[in-house]
Amino acid sequence: MNDYVRDGAEIYRRSFATIRAEADLTGLPDGVARTAVRMIHSCGMVDLVADLAYSPGVVDAARAALLAGAPVLCDTRMVAAGVTRARLPADNPVICTLSDSRVPGLAHQLATTRTAAAVDLWRDRLDGAVVAVGNAPTALFRLLELVESGAGRPAAVIGVPVGFIGAAESKRALAEHPSRLEHLVVHGRRGGSAMAAAAVNAIASEDE
Amino acid sequence: MNDYVRDGAEIYRRSFATIRAEADLTGLPDGVARTAVRMIHSCGMVDLVADLAYSPGVVDAARAALLAGAPVLCDTRMVAAGVTRARLPADNPVICTLSDSRVPGLAHQLATTRTAAAVDLWRDRLDGAVVAVGNAPTALFRLLELVESGAGRPAAVIGVPVGFIGAAESKRALAEHPSRLEHLVVHGRRGGSAMAAAAVNAIASEDE
Repeated sequence: MNDYVRDGAEIYRRSFATIRAEADLTGLPDGVARTAVRMIHSCGMVDLVADLAYSPGVVDAARAALLAGAPVLCDTRMVAAGVTRARLPADNPVICTLSDSRVPGLAHQLATTRTAAAVDLWRDRLDGAVVAVGNAPTALFRLLELVESGAGRPAAVIGVPVGFIGAAESKRALAEHPSRLEHLVVHGRRGGSAMAAAAVNAIASEDE
Repeated sequence: MNDYVRDGAEIYRRSFATIRAEADLTGLPDGVARTAVRMIHSCGMVDLVADLAYSPGVVDAARAALLAGAPVLCDTRMVAAGVTRARLPADNPVICTLSDSRVPGLAHQLATTRTAAAVDLWRDRLDGAVVAVGNAPTALFRLLELVESGAGRPAAVIGVPVGFIGAAESKRALAEHPSRLEHLVVHGRRGGSAMAAAAVNAIASEDE
């Protein structure tokens, strides 16, 4: 049978060493570099760095918010499932409102997707939160609308929705938004729930 | 504010049309092509097809198993969270044993990762199951060991673990395994929980 590495810690160590050897992390602030390493780990692609864009303070802002107990607001259950609870510094709530019973009615009323309607239910917890959007461009667009309407200002937004319709546009809208939210995005079509969760996990703890 | 498509069904339609226009699906059996489209949708990369490998009967075998009520065995909670329950044809159980209280002890005893140890807890349900591995190469290696030891034979294996240490090797081991399991893999480093769940969702229902 195959001889393979069975030691979890050793697998992590070798994985991160490979990523650091192959990825061009030049010029990234330390916290962003650590976050990029974990995002690369989640997708297997070292060239992800080329599409990375961020505000310089995003990791510090997100980390400070988590230390202060901020919730992590996730667009999908997959993102929420991917956040490693043991890495969170303050037993932070990890929230996905997509399964809330009000969502279908709200989506109908707002004439939008369920994922975007679910973002409307973040209103009470948006201010100072860490937001992780890994799937739905409409969730990211709706988030920006809420911020514009004065519903609150998240401490940081991980914006990595994936796909072909609206994903690239929504990430550009976040990166260029006049509200100058602290943000981390992967421009273009790539992204995903695993990448969003990996970014949160990297920010949540400095342990590799 | 940004003008963006808010109609979920329309977003799906345009996304799948874009994928079918850009991806080279030539030569793929119909079921595999439909599955590839959803896997591409989950990661934003039409060139994924180049790394796809499969046994010709994999989609039919997995679909028949699901229709007969087979469980979906997932290596991580993210894969399980990504399987759309409403698409499953027989209210199939979606099982992830990673949080089982026996896993840490078993991992220690077997001197392996927790994810691989969790696969050991599939024994009773392995025969005829649909397996979806989206994260851990060690889970896929362990699965092959169980099959070799006569613990049961899954109806089909979606093998798309992601990463730098063991991922490519584990997928090659599945594709070339002497047991000739029905399989679908993405060779190389790419893969992930979202891709594994997307494959299951494609196979579970013919609705796009």
